[in-house]
This record gives sequence, structure tokens and C-alpha cells, in this order.
Amino acid sequence: MRLLFVGDVVGRPGRNMLESHLPQLKKRYKPQVTIVNGENAASGKGITEKIYKSMLGFGAQVVTLGNHTWARNDIFAFINEEPNLIRPINYPPGVPGNGQTSVNVNGQELVVINAMGRIFMEAIDSPFQALDKAVDEARKRTPFVFVDFHGEATSEKQAMGWFLDGRASAVIGTHTHIQTADERILPGGTAYLTDVGMTGPYDGIIGMERDEVMKKMQTALPAKFEVAQGRTQLNAAFMDIDDRTGNAVKIERILLNEDHPFAE
Amino acid sequence: MRLLFVGDVVGRPGRNMLESHLPQLKKRYKPQVTIVNGENAASGKGITEKIYKSMLGFGAQVVTLGNHTWARNDIFAFINEEPNLIRPINYPPGVPGNGQTSVNVNGQELVVINAMGRIFMEAIDSPFQALDKAVDEARKRTPFVFVDFHGEATSEKQAMGWFLDGRASAVIGTHTHIQTADERILPGGTAYLTDVGMTGPYDGIIGMERDEVMKKMQTALPAKFEVAQGRTQLNAAFMDIDDRTGNAVKIERILLNEDHPFAE
Amino acid sequence: MRLLFVGDVVGRPGRNMLESHLPQLKKRYKPQVTIVNGENAASGKGITEKIYKSMLGFGAQVVTLGNHTWARNDIFAFINEEPNLIRPINYPPGVPGNGQTSVNVNGQELVVINAMGRIFMEAIDSPFQALDKAVDEARKRTPFVFVDFHGEATSEKQAMGWFLDGRASAVIGTHTHIQTADERILPGGTAYLTDVGMTGPYDGIIGMERDEVMKKMQTALPAKFEVAQGRTQLNAAFMDIDDRTGNAVKIERILLNEDHPFAE
Amino acid sequence: MRLLFVGDVVGRPGRNMLESHLPQLKKRYKPQVTIVNGENAASGKGITEKIYKSMLGFGAQVVTLGNHTWARNDIFAFINEEPNLIRPINYPPGVPGNGQTSVNVNGQELVVINAMGRIFMEAIDSPFQALDKAVDEARKRTPFVFVDFHGEATSEKQAMGWFLDGRASAVIGTHTHIQTADERILPGGTAYLTDVGMTGPYDGIIGMERDEVMKKMQTALPAKFEVAQGRTQLNAAFMDIDDRTGNAVKIERILLNEDHPFAE
Ligand SMILES: [Fe+2]
Ligand SMILES: [Fe+2]
Ligand SMILES: [Fe+2]
Ligand SMILES: [Fe+2]
Ligand SMILES: [Fe+2]
Ligand SMILES: [Fe+2]
Ligand SMILES: [Fe+2]
Ligand SMILES: [Fe+2]
Repeated sequence: MRLLFVGDVVGRPGRNMLESHLPQLKKRYKPQVTIVNGENAASGKGITEKIYKSMLGFGAQVVTLGNHTWARNDIFAFINEEPNLIRPINYPPGVPGNGQTSVNVNGQELVVINAMGRIFMEAIDSPFQALDKAVDEARKRTPFVFVDFHGEATSEKQAMGWFLDGRASAVIGTHTHIQTADERILPGGTAYLTDVGMTGPYDGIIGMERDEVMKKMQTALPAKFEVAQGRTQLNAAFMDIDDRTGNAVKIERILLNEDHPFAE
Repeated sequence: MRLLFVGDVVGRPGRNMLESHLPQLKKRYKPQVTIVNGENAASGKGITEKIYKSMLGFGAQVVTLGNHTWARNDIFAFINEEPNLIRPINYPPGVPGNGQTSVNVNGQELVVINAMGRIFMEAIDSPFQALDKAVDEARKRTPFVFVDFHGEATSEKQAMGWFLDGRASAVIGTHTHIQTADERILPGGTAYLTDVGMTGPYDGIIGMERDEVMKKMQTALPAKFEVAQGRTQLNAAFMDIDDRTGNAVKIERILLNEDHPFAE
Repeated sequence: MRLLFVGDVVGRPGRNMLESHLPQLKKRYKPQVTIVNGENAASGKGITEKIYKSMLGFGAQVVTLGNHTWARNDIFAFINEEPNLIRPINYPPGVPGNGQTSVNVNGQELVVINAMGRIFMEAIDSPFQALDKAVDEARKRTPFVFVDFHGEATSEKQAMGWFLDGRASAVIGTHTHIQTADERILPGGTAYLTDVGMTGPYDGIIGMERDEVMKKMQTALPAKFEVAQGRTQLNAAFMDIDDRTGNAVKIERILLNEDHPFAE
Repeated sequence: MRLLFVGDVVGRPGRNMLESHLPQLKKRYKPQVTIVNGENAASGKGITEKIYKSMLGFGAQVVTLGNHTWARNDIFAFINEEPNLIRPINYPPGVPGNGQTSVNVNGQELVVINAMGRIFMEAIDSPFQALDKAVDEARKRTPFVFVDFHGEATSEKQAMGWFLDGRASAVIGTHTHIQTADERILPGGTAYLTDVGMTGPYDGIIGMERDEVMKKMQTALPAKFEVAQGRTQLNAAFMDIDDRTGNAVKIERILLNEDHPFAE
């Protein structure tokens, strides 16, 4: 099973990048399922129904989220209606939306799960408890399990990769907006990457206009973060999963920007 | 000017990796100065005089540190005697050691500065204030300035890259122990990489034995972190700096492990 | 039902203070149950079996803990053998020890529960989920429920008081080591105090020798915290609970030190 | 010199409480200077020029601030025009406003300084460095120095009290919104109180409507915090300072609410 995962789409520049480059990427990698992290799709924070649907239109089948899930009030009106829009599974009971979904790929089930770390982040339920349970249940039905683990600390993300090694087909990190270079297939067969990176502005600070971010860091004064203008990038990962075992056989980082143009 | 920077050397496996691979790397890249982050060199935390000197013996000219600088009491006895062992410059006044040093490269001065971020880290003096001053002073004497910015948050590290763009020859991050894939030369001429990664165990969690780290994350019980055994890796970056302007003309990530062996 | 709760006993000065003043306090307040927070009883961090038993000898019936529960390895050997030594109930499943115990008071059951906050503290399971369940279950058997809520943030502690108002007889905070002045009986009948304060050194910084704490705050250098010498204090709270309803009818702060001596 | 300090005024309920009770308090305590923390005066976050001036009208001479200083954009337009409206002194260079002011009391100078802690708060410049310098400079001119230390951690606040003992007339904490019961005169003559508490709603969670705060703590969903309605309280401290030495001779906590009414 061939999977493409595109990292945090930030604002209009990210959506434009997705729209313009997803066709090329699909042509090259022929993914059977395309998953996109959309937690920053609406002006850098959150997502709206219209934007979610536009991302499906660009070619995503599943959209994952993260700590910015609830930034736009709109989300509460439609998250329960859209099974393929998922938020971290380890939000406490009672929180709207779902933490996982299933996609039918030629009669085989791919389970996509979104979860969130807690180190340097808000205290929610344990991602280890939640993923232990969700992955084990999914594995009773199918060997194909993809996890978007949205986290800050490299230690927690790497721990989760090893924790799920041999149980998930892939554990790919999001949230830091900087792609890491440590893609690998762990000994148990799980494709792992600490962070896939972001899709959107190339010359901002993790996607935001630099001046306000730097002002805040230098003065501690409040700042109004806006999505940066100018050049753009797309960060993604491609995974090839063994059709029988659910183990990854390949993981490839994808990084498109003016310094790394799409090579035809 | 050709510079090689090796990321956080973790314990004996990291030191062994440094000893065995630095000759090859020097042969290939012909660096005029080799800088090594050694904050984890002694059993994963801190450094001793003996280990510092062994690292010079392996081929380092400057050793930088970070939040683990003071983990071994030994440091207080020798840090003031070793100008080429530097700790983050933004520790408050009165703290032992220096935050920068100068290396003579064929009559030209390379200033190497170590600084530390504050987001998700301990509150010390502002790295922006400290580097603003230190880099400007260095630039009065020389165009060659290398900064090891030891930080957790991608936003703070990327902000520092842009803050020093055109003033420092290179701003390379350390501390997260995972190499990022975002090496680039910023428009003003500064080579930038969010994190160079670590040198040491390949199958640990950021260098440490996995079982204890995972136990702590799952239970919140105290854990005894030890340097992981087994396969090893080396993470580094090579930079070529224009001899006239001090601007970077090249930055190349180096990642050596069993999945990415040294290609002769 | 008359309850006495003594705040975090710190090291030998705290244990001595408990031994010397508990008899007086018992004589004055005639508590039917005396509960003592002992998370700092052993040299300022953790507790040992010997110290736990000495505290029972001084007159405690139940000892509660907190984030320092596991500081002494000794704890793992005896916590499961001592039902009246309890640790925060919201540690994840699988963690040794229990989060609650029951004391028989003339044929009536008092349930004592220890829980821990998460704001500015380690991420463990939700104290709201855990206490919601534990208090409701206890209330099926008895109206007498005492909660030691070990937390840092005033907001989280006050929120827990209101969350359990009318369900717990008392919600008393620990951990900050400074007694707050906000004791009250909430409208639903729950006695509440944000923090009961500590028992031990009077002239330290939250119980520790001042020099090392101040050095650390000024320099970010590591420090060796030791229990402060010199004058001592005892901080506690007395509660009178209605024997029929389990509602509090009285809460009184107790603060003993050289500036506030025991008035006979 | 007689000083009255009123803790964080929260929204309209706090301003009303100040207006209605300050006359009584002035009648009883006869303060020569009244200082009020106003960081939450405007709808719970920040302050406006109109509100600042109304607080002067109610009887304050100096208004101190804290981490919410900049919540209302209005502040940037007038903070530099109002010397008796001060914000934490340890904001970095270049930040608008001042960290201290002087009040003439019958020909004697009272220096009022506002500073902010860093533990569990935003990383700004060191409050120890800033207060060390500011207090020493003030003491060259006058023995009367009042410090509002706005901080979260009890350890940092207590450390600051001891750090300035014998140099400041009083070090009084703000920010947690819960009054502590540890008022004392330290051995060097400094009046100290970890937190003076807040002025405003009595039945909220640190001043805010309970439902939204509890929802956020239970679900991690975003919440819209609003100033609580209903019963109100006033929290303050009175200090009497020796006119010759600048040492405190008395500190008295003031706590007014329906459970602790003003006793004439
Ligand atoms: Fe994101
Ligand atoms: Fe995120
Ligand atoms: Fe490191
Ligand atoms: Fe580090
Ligand atoms: Fe404690
Ligand atoms: Fe504690
Ligand atoms: Fe406040
Ligand atoms: Fe505040």
C-alpha cells in the first residue's frame, strides 16, 4: 500500500502549494491514500469546513489535526459530520470529533490515527495509553495502520516510534514545522520520521511573518502572528507498505522549495 | 574557510564514533576548523577534562556545550583554563567559563560562539541580546563567525537564524539530538540548520536506553537514563565560508549510520 | 467528624515539629482522624518505611504524598503493604500503590483520597476524571470524603474545590509549601483551602537552605538543595464535618512558628 | 511611612470593590501611599487609560502591572505618559513604560518597583539582576522601597523576599490571585507576603467564570474566560515602615468578603 503524507499546511500559501504540487506528487509516487495535516490551514491556525473540503478537492483522502484543531469555532459545527477529518485521539472523553478513521484501499482497510504528545504541550490523556489501545484494536482487523503523532519533544516522538514499532505501519511526526532527516524503517517494520515538516511559507518562522515572531522573542510583548508572504515550500513523506505484512518497505522524505525544486 | 561541526556527542558510543570517523570526514571535507558539541560526552550528561582532551585528540579544535554543561562537577575545575571549551554565552554574569573563543586560521580569525534558547528551557539571559552584542563585536574584527545555538523550539532556532542572517557565517542548532533536513543558506549569506543531530547510539531514544525513557513517559515514575548500547551514528554539518565576505557558500548535512554508511 | 490535616512535612525539622506539636494540637482540636502529607519527609524528598512508621507513631493515621512520592527507592518495597500510605490517584494504571484509603471512625467510613494537578507539573492522567470517579464511588458508601489535592497552580486547585463542592467534605491543597489564607466552606458544603502549607524549616525557601536556591535562580547553575536548619514551623488545617451530611461546618487554618506561637 | 497595597483588581467587580471600600480602608489604616495592582482591571486582562485614571480617582497613587500589562492595545498610547503606572522592570530594554516610580511623602521619597518572576512564566530578563540594581540605586537616595513582585512560583517569590531582606522595606507578591497567610517581617527588616491576593469576584476561579475554566481543564478545548459575576472580595496588605530606617515594623493582611466582612 502506497501512502503520501503532507505536513502541516499553513494558510493560503500552504493550500496553494498543495493544490499546485499534489498532482505532480501523485503522478510520481502513485499513492493509494493521501493524508494531509491541516491544523494550520485556516490563516495559520485551525481549519474551516470550506478549507477542509477544498483539501479533499486537491486530492487528500484524510485530514489530520493537532493542537490548533479548535482555533476556528467553525470546527464544532462539522467535525462530527466528517469521518475523514480526525483530531488527536487522546483528547479526553466528551471532546467532539474522532481520533481515527478507516480508508478502504481495494478492499483492504487502512486505519489512520492522529495523536498528540504532552511534553512541552497541554496536558491531555496519555498518548501511549490511547495509541496502545487503538493500534491493537486496529491490528485485529488489518495490518495497515498509519499514525500522525503531533508533538514537540523529539524524545517523546522517538519513544512513540519505538513503542509502536512492529504494530503500526508508519509513525510520522508533525507540529514542529521543520522536517527532520531521520527517516528510517525501525527493526520491527515501522516507518518512522520525527517530523515531516510544514507546507506553506518558505521564508517565515515556522510559517509566520518573521518580524512579529522576533519582536515577541526579544521583548515578550504580545505579537500578532500572520502567515508569511513570499516563497513557499511543501514537506511530505512517501511510504510503501508491504501488502501482506503491513510492514514498511520504504520511506522517502519529500521537500520542495526554491532550493529543492521538483525534479521531473 | 571550511568548517566541520559535529552534533552532540553522547557518551562512550559517541566518543568512539568521533574517534573512528573524524579522520575519514577530515579527509573528505578538509575542514580548517572542526567544532564538536560535547555537552553529553560524559555518560550522556556533561563533560570531564579527560574527555574534553580526548576530543581534541580526535581532531576537534573547539568544543561547545549546552544545558548539560554543569552536569559533572569536574567542569568547574577546568572550564576557565580551557579557552576552546565554551558554554552558552547567555548564562548570567558571574557564571564560570566563556561563551566564545577565537581560532586562528592561517592568520584569519574565526569566532565561535555558543548560546542557548529559552523556550521550553531554563530561564537565563536573552540569547538575542547576547548574540546581538557578541556577533556585532566579533564582526568588527573578522567576517568569520560560527554560532552553535542550543535550543529546543524550532521557532526560536529559526528566529535566531534570521536574526543573525548576514552577520554570522553560520547558525547551527543543537540539543534536540535529531538532525533536521532544512539546511540552507539564508538570503543574507548565513548557513542555517535547525539541528545538526547527535553522535552516539543509533537505536536509543535521543541516545538513551529506550526502556527507561518509555517507562517514564508511560508512568511518570522516575527513571535512570543510561546511554544506549548497540549501533551508532554520527551527525554533522560541513560549511564552506567565502574567504572574503564571511558569507556561507555551501552547507551540507552529514549523517552516518548503518542505514547511511560512509560512501567512499 | 473532626479531621486534622498537616501540610508537607519537610525533613527532620518537619518530623521533629510533628512529634513535638501533634500532641498539643490533638488535645486542642480532638481530631478523630489525623492526616499528614509526607512527600518531603525524608531529607526533603520522598519518604522511607521507617519515617512513615514514625509518623504513625507521632499520631498520624493516614499519610498522603505527591510529586516526590518516588524520590526514595525504598518506597517501591513497602507502598503496596501500607494501605494508609497513599499516592496521587491519577498516576497511570500499573503504577505501584493506591490513591485512596478508608479509615473507620466509630463505625463510619472516612475515605481519604490523594490526587495531583497537572498545570506546571508532570503530565499524568486527568485529576478531574480520576476524582470524579473516585469521589462518586466513595459517596455511594459514605458522606465523608477528604481530598488532598497536590498542585502548583491556584487556578487548578480552586477549580477542583468547586468541581467537588457538595461531593467531598474537604478539598485541601498541598505542594506550594506556603499556606494560603482563603479557607472557606463553599456553598455546597465543601471545606476548601488552596494550600495548607508546609511543616519544617521556617527560614528556608519552601523548606530548603536559601543559599543554594538563590544561587540556582540567579545563575541557572545546578544546586544541591538541602533541608534548611534553624527555626521551624507547622502548618495545618482543622475541619469539622457534619456527622449526618458529610458537609463541612468549620475549617480553621493552623500556623505555628516563632511569630505565631501555640497559644494555650 | 504607612503603605496600603491592594492586590490584582479584576474587571468591573474589582473596580467597584476598590471604589466602595478604599475610603473605609483609608480611614482605618491612614496609609500615606496606596498602591494597587491593576493588571486585570480591564475585563480581567490589561488596563485602559480611563480605568487607570478612575483608579487614581478611587484613591490609588501608584498602579502596578504584571504579565497582562499589554493585553489592551490602549496601553501603548499612554504608559509612557503616566509615571505612576509601572510595569515589571525586568522587561528587556526597548519595551515601553517604566519599572519604577517615586512618590513624595512629606518630603521623603518612596520608590515603588514592579518586577516579574520567570518560573512557570515567560522568559524575560532576570528579576534578580534587575532588582539588585534598582533597589541598590534607590537606597542611595532613600530607605523607602516597595516591591510588587509578580510571580507564580512560591519558591521564586520567597527567594526574592530573602534576596532583598534588609534592602527593601517590603516585598509583596501578586499574580496567583490567592492571598497567602505567610505575612512576616524578615530578620533584616523587610515586610514579606508571598501573594496579596486579588480584588474582584469571590466565587469565580481566580476571578473568572467557573464553567469555562473547568471546561478547559477537563477537555483542553479553548475557553472564553470572562470575569465572574456575583459576590466580591478585596485583598490587600497594610505595612508600617520605620521612618528612620526604612525597615518594616508591621505588616497586616486585609481580606474582605462576605465571610470576612469589614468590622468597624
Ligand atoms: Fe502545525
Ligand atoms: Fe501543532
Ligand atoms: Fe545534547
Ligand atoms: Fe542539550
Ligand atoms: Fe511538598
Ligand atoms: Fe510536591
Ligand atoms: Fe493578576
Ligand atoms: Fe499576572
